[in-house]
Parts: sequence; C-alpha cells; structure tokens
Amino acid sequence: MASSSSSSYGIEQLQKECYYEWMSLQAKHIVDLKEALIRQRSNAYNHHKLEELVGKIVNDFQSYAKRRSELTDKSCSSYFAPSWNSSLENGLLWMGGCRPSSFVRVIYALCGSCAEAHLSRYLLQIDENIDDGHDGDSSMSDLTATQLEKINDLHVKVIREEDKLTKKYANFQEDVADMPIAVTAFWRDSVEADVAVEDALDKHEECMGVLMADADKVRVETLRRIVEVLTPVQAAEFLLSGKRLHMSLHEWGRAREERRYGCVHVGMQQQGEPEPESQRDRTLIDM
Amino acid sequence: MASSSSSSYGIEQLQKECYYEWMSLQAKHIVDLKEALIRQRSNAYNHHKLEELVGKIVNDFQSYAKRRSELTDKSCSSYFAPSWNSSLENGLLWMGGCRPSSFVRVIYALCGSCAEAHLSRYLLQIDENIDDGHDGDSSMSDLTATQLEKINDLHVKVIREEDKLTKKYANFQEDVADMPIAVTAFWRDSVEADVAVEDALDKHEECMGVLMADADKVRVETLRRIVEVLTPVQAAEFLLSGKRLHMSLHEWGRAREERRYGCVHVGMQQQGEPEPESQRDRTLIDM
Repeated sequence: MASSSSSSYGIEQLQKECYYEWMSLQAKHIVDLKEALIRQRSNAYNHHKLEELVGKIVNDFQSYAKRRSELTDKSCSSYFAPSWNSSLENGLLWMGGCRPSSFVRVIYALCGSCAEAHLSRYLLQIDENIDDGHDGDSSMSDLTATQLEKINDLHVKVIREEDKLTKKYANFQEDVADMPIAVTAFWRDSVEADVAVEDALDKHEECMGVLMADADKVRVETLRRIVEVLTPVQAAEFLLSGKRLHMSLHEWGRAREERRYGCVHVGMQQQGEPEPESQRDRTLIDM
Repeated sequence: MASSSSSSYGIEQLQKECYYEWMSLQAKHIVDLKEALIRQRSNAYNHHKLEELVGKIVNDFQSYAKRRSELTDKSCSSYFAPSWNSSLENGLLWMGGCRPSSFVRVIYALCGSCAEAHLSRYLLQIDENIDDGHDGDSSMSDLTATQLEKINDLHVKVIREEDKLTKKYANFQEDVADMPIAVTAFWRDSVEADVAVEDALDKHEECMGVLMADADKVRVETLRRIVEVLTPVQAAEFLLSGKRLHMSLHEWGRAREERRYGCVHVGMQQQGEPEPESQRDRTLIDM
C-alpha cells in the first residue's frame, strides 16, 4: 500500500507540473504567433515559415495530450475537476478539457467580429476618419464560402463525436450505481470499501482515463482539420485566439474567485504558473 | 465591489454549510430508515408510518434542492465541481449532483443482488444449512412485472430528460467561445476582463444555475415517481441504499485521496462533516 501511495502522489504532482508546463508553452506560443503575424504583414516572414509554426503548435498540443494520457494511470478523476482550475473553468470542462466544437465556435465568432470591425471601420473612416483601435488586418473575414462550408461540415461531425463520448461518459457514471459498488454500499453497514469496491473504482478510473484520451484525440484531430482548411495566416490567428481564450479564462476565473472568496491575493501567482500575457509582454499589445 | 465580494464570500460559505447539513440529515435518514425497517419486520411499525417516513425523506430532498437553488446566485460554478467533494465524486457529477437515471440503476442492482442472495441462501440451506450473513428480508426481489415495467418506462423517460439538459449544458459551454468573451480575448492584449466579459460570465453562471435547478427538479421528480411505484418497504430499502451509496462514495473518494496524496490524515473529519455511519452506529449493523 505504501508504494502505491507514493507512486500516486508522484502522479498527482506530475499532472500539475504537466499542466503548468503546457500553460507556459502556450504563453510562448502566443508570443511566437504574434511576432510571426507582425512579420508576415511587413513581408518579413513567408507563408511557408508561418505554416511551419502552425504545424509545430498543433504537434505541441498532441504531445501534451499524449503526456496527459500517460499520467492518467488509476488517477484520472483529478483531470475531470482539476484543483489547479478555477470553478469557472471546471464548470466549462468536457472530458478533462475544452469541447472540440468550441474551436469551431471561435472561428465563427472571429469571422463575425472581423466582418463587423471591417464594416464599422469603413463607416467611421468615411465619416470622421477615426481609428477604432483594431488594426483590421485580421484575415478571418476573408474566409471563402468553400472554407466556411468545410468548417460547417466539420462542426456537425465534431458534435456527433462529442455526443458519442458524452453517452459513454453517462454510461460509466451510471455503472457506479450498479454491482458491486451500490450493492456493497447497501449490504455492508460499514463505510469502508472492500477489495471488490476498490477494484471496481480502479476500473472506473481506468475507463475514464481511456475516455479522456479519446476526447483528447478528437480535440487534436479537430484542431488539425481546422488548420488544414485555413490559410497559414488564418490558422495563426485562429490558434492565437484559442490560446488567448484559454489563458484569459484561467485568469478571469481566478480573478473572480479572488474577489469572491479572497482566497488568493490579486496578482499572486500559483507556483509554476506562467505570468499573464499583459504583464509579460506589453510591447506587443498593438499586434 | 466590496459589498458584492463579501456577499459572494457569504454565499460560498452558505453553499458549503448547506451541503454538510444535508449530509448530516442523510446520516439521520439512514438511522431512521434502518430502525423503521427493523420494526416493520417485527410488526411493530405499520405500512402507513413507513409511508410517512418515505414521504418526509423525499420532501427533505426537495427542500435541499430548493435551498441549493437559492444559493446559486451568480456563484453557481462551484456546484459543478465543489471543493468539498473528492475527485472521484466530482468525476461522477452531472449538473451539480447525481444522474437521476442512477436512481433507477440502484433498483436494478438491488433487484439482481436480492434475487441472487435468495437463490444462494436457498441452495446453501438445502446443502449445509449455512447462514451467509444476509438477513434475506429485502423485498427488492419481490418487484412485480408491472412494477418493473413502470420503472423501465421511467428509466427511458429520465434518460431522455437527462439528454435534453446535457445538450443545453453543451450549448452554454460552447457559447463561452463566442462573442463577447472569445472576441474580447482575441482583440484585447490584456488578460483583464472588461465589463462586457464580466457581464457575459455573470450571465453564463446564471444560466448554469437555472440548468442545475432544472436538473434538481428531474432528480426530485424521479425519486418521487420511483417511490410511487414501490411498496413502502421497497421504497424504504431503495432510499436507504441510495443514501448509503452517496455517503459511501464520499468516504471512499476521500479515503482514496488520503492514501494517494496524504492530504488529510485517515479518520480526520472535515469541519461540520457527519461522522461515518460505521463509527456512529455499530448497534444497527445487522439490520
């Protein structure tokens, strides 16, 4: 039992480290993407190099998913409501991560926002020659009808895959209310778990681990397919927005909790957590 | 902002207290149900009294749901992965509670287990006149075909209602990757949330609160319908098993985490947490 305890303790630590390493890498991705987009606009960066960066970032996500999957051994539950997340983020979790369909929603949102920004800038410039602060070089409003159709097909497919995994998850959850767990709880007057219960709970966590790995596969695959449909510039903007959304939600969720419960002083960083983009990288604000 | 912070802090405290009060009440329900079932077997308790107890317990669950719903005001996220739960329990959560369909699964599990226990006792008694430790008076194996058919119909209906709410939940989660949240994250280089984002996140938490209240309604309604189909003795046994399952999972999840991470000493109780049944109530072990 002692050796099992210490190895599980190690796994929980490793899970947390793995997450913070990923957050740091994402902070670096944001900087790299912003620099690449600025250079590309001034023609100092060619499409091929941008494509390479996009490919590398998608591969990094795949490596992160692989690493997580290696760390789920009999200790997967913590991924379904991690202690390193705020309640806001945990309420948004689907199978230990974001919904793959939300990647597609980010494209739709950006697409609409860019078209709106273009239009309002056009109108403002005609009327008063006012700069509204957006640089307007986003290429998301230039998505072609063919691209949008492909993205839409992908959205439908991804939702179908999500539903399939959601159903499996529901079944695993329901199974806990079956033999031997429910029956042991009923027949035995003690609240101590016996070997049959511990085995069933281990098996349950293993199944959840497999499910999370399957969900990670859908997440990686969706990202890869989206990037294939987009031009390198669009793909870089899409990845930038996804990463900013992830980092922002982490910060916003934490800030809301700090204000609510006063559990962490505002601005205090958790150990190993990357510094927020705004404090680290003010020079690149006007991407 | 200060008054909002302090009232939110109050809400989080109240949510936790509300949970521990419910756990204590459930511990009392277990004792009451066990006593009632023992008396009923010795004919010291009539069916009408048992029916009253069952009705009271279902009403207590409804009051708990109502109280929770009152405590979700702009602070609902914490219910989707509460800090007072173990990872195991949070991995089993559906809309801040158990799946209503798992109530039905408990009946099926007990039904199968009771039939099995009857058979094995019958065989053992024929062969060697051995007592296997079960008292064998469970009435779950006496469910009639009509009762099983009604339970089965209810199961199908409950799964349909669960699916409907799960879809709504998915939509709310996806909406976060839309305007204004995703777009603000993309356009603004700062990780600080603006008023539009804070409003959208407040709105998001309100929607999640409404969803949890709807899920609670399904949970209460399912419990009520099940109890209507069962005889008072069967209903008492069903409620007893459901409550024991809940209390046991809470203990087992905590014990697994203690062994894994060593974060709490074995046997140490959280503030306000009811004592486990086994330590409190050894006299009733042979119900």
